[in-house]
Amino acid sequence: MSLPIRRLAIVGTGLVGGSLALALKQAREVGQVIGLGRRRETLEQARSLGMIDEIAESPAGMGDADMVMLAVPMAQMPGILRDIAPHLGDNTIITDAGSTKGDVIAAARELLGTKFPRFVPGHPIAGAENSGPQAARADLFVGRNVVLCPAAETDPAALEAVTALWQGTGAQVVRMDAARHDRIFAAVSHLPHLAAFALVDELAARPDMEDYFRYAASGFRDFTRIAASSPEMWRDIALANREALLTELSAYMDKLGEIAAALDKGDAAALDAIFSRASKARRNWEGK
Amino acid sequence: MSLPIRRLAIVGTGLVGGSLALALKQAREVGQVIGLGRRRETLEQARSLGMIDEIAESPAGMGDADMVMLAVPMAQMPGILRDIAPHLGDNTIITDAGSTKGDVIAAARELLGTKFPRFVPGHPIAGAENSGPQAARADLFVGRNVVLCPAAETDPAALEAVTALWQGTGAQVVRMDAARHDRIFAAVSHLPHLAAFALVDELAARPDMEDYFRYAASGFRDFTRIAASSPEMWRDIALANREALLTELSAYMDKLGEIAAALDKGDAAALDAIFSRASKARRNWEGK
Repeated sequence: MSLPIRRLAIVGTGLVGGSLALALKQAREVGQVIGLGRRRETLEQARSLGMIDEIAESPAGMGDADMVMLAVPMAQMPGILRDIAPHLGDNTIITDAGSTKGDVIAAARELLGTKFPRFVPGHPIAGAENSGPQAARADLFVGRNVVLCPAAETDPAALEAVTALWQGTGAQVVRMDAARHDRIFAAVSHLPHLAAFALVDELAARPDMEDYFRYAASGFRDFTRIAASSPEMWRDIALANREALLTELSAYMDKLGEIAAALDKGDAAALDAIFSRASKARRNWEGK
Repeated sequence: MSLPIRRLAIVGTGLVGGSLALALKQAREVGQVIGLGRRRETLEQARSLGMIDEIAESPAGMGDADMVMLAVPMAQMPGILRDIAPHLGDNTIITDAGSTKGDVIAAARELLGTKFPRFVPGHPIAGAENSGPQAARADLFVGRNVVLCPAAETDPAALEAVTALWQGTGAQVVRMDAARHDRIFAAVSHLPHLAAFALVDELAARPDMEDYFRYAASGFRDFTRIAASSPEMWRDIALANREALLTELSAYMDKLGEIAAALDKGDAAALDAIFSRASKARRNWEGK
């Protein structure tokens, strides 16, 4: 094929959807891009930025798209799957860019019915400080990991097509079991966000909070940077990945309890052991 | 006075002690700088970098210093106070640059005896990724806060002299009760370090840790940056500020427990409230 994807429909033309469109167009990996979304303004912006060629007024307007990418917040996934299901062509491949996978797979299995084998669950590991089409960049995925989590029923040809799509953006595609994906991201992404929100909220509730924030320095800045993230997005991700996240939260609280107990006893050796292992692991990771 | 400090002795010529010496020399706020320390190599380095004019082989070598600055790790403070006490002149002012204040004040009160009123407890809020004299910079304190925590007995003239010393580096001097200082820094600095160490150590202990670290991205990088800090330094700070830090740890674990309970119940509104307050407070702080 000269053009791997003739017609691509993107639902949600924000940072991820918009960057995908830009990357594929720049690499000439796509023919026509159709945009769908809740907000007309975002779609108009995406069109004026050259990301999409056409705006579909409703799911029926996707026409005979080869592929549909769902790049919307987690909480909107089930509703969109329900809306698009009746309009999918016989060969249309469906994929998503959500941060959690188990819940999207469950919703897709229920709502897509016999079309579920053509659904390829995905998660591009790339983000930026800002959101919306104006934050999109053609190089957002270059060298980044994209995790695909095929289910047992997933059609191998659909999986290959979505793999090729992401490779076309310069990303590296990795395949992983959805449950394992959700555990790993609960630990390295979702838990840190919750832990940062918790620290800032605990301080913000104090009557003399201004005095605390006044003396916060660079360590605090780095640690809490992700607490400025979108509350709605993280509420939805937390709920979507509830089981795995509760397990991680519990392990984290146990570790904090271990540190508190060592501190209470004045156990310098125990504190040293924990801090040294952590410092070494963090330095090794940064070095890679 | 043309030279506010004729002769300054600095114990510990690392990042803080070295930067202080450079700043004061550049501003012509000091005559002669004498260096003391445990490691000959560090002192030689400080001398060759122009920070100190002379190396004292022992506390007796401080001679008639107008002021002695203790810029050493927390755990060394009591030993050094004991060593220097007999050699302090009748008018010598003593000050420190430690990250906690209650414990240094207690040690100084015990070990300096009748000279305690000339001890001015201080904490410059400035740091850098690296340590040692080679990391020192004359502008490290420009525009930064330096907190001084005078005790009830502190001599007002000594307090003025140390205030002038720090102002001479371009810093802004703030005075604060030691207990309040220790509570504030437990919350905005010591707790974030412990929380970052805890997260990384919890992951590092897993047999499949490599899989977790492989997918960690920018949020994880920022959140855990301070987990690469010196384990010894943070062990000592944690122990030095034990009471205040245990209080903060407990409040933080309560907040995490509140989030876990909301998540367990699927209480979207409660999560939204916590994340929204935190996000707003963090954005306001960054904006300042």
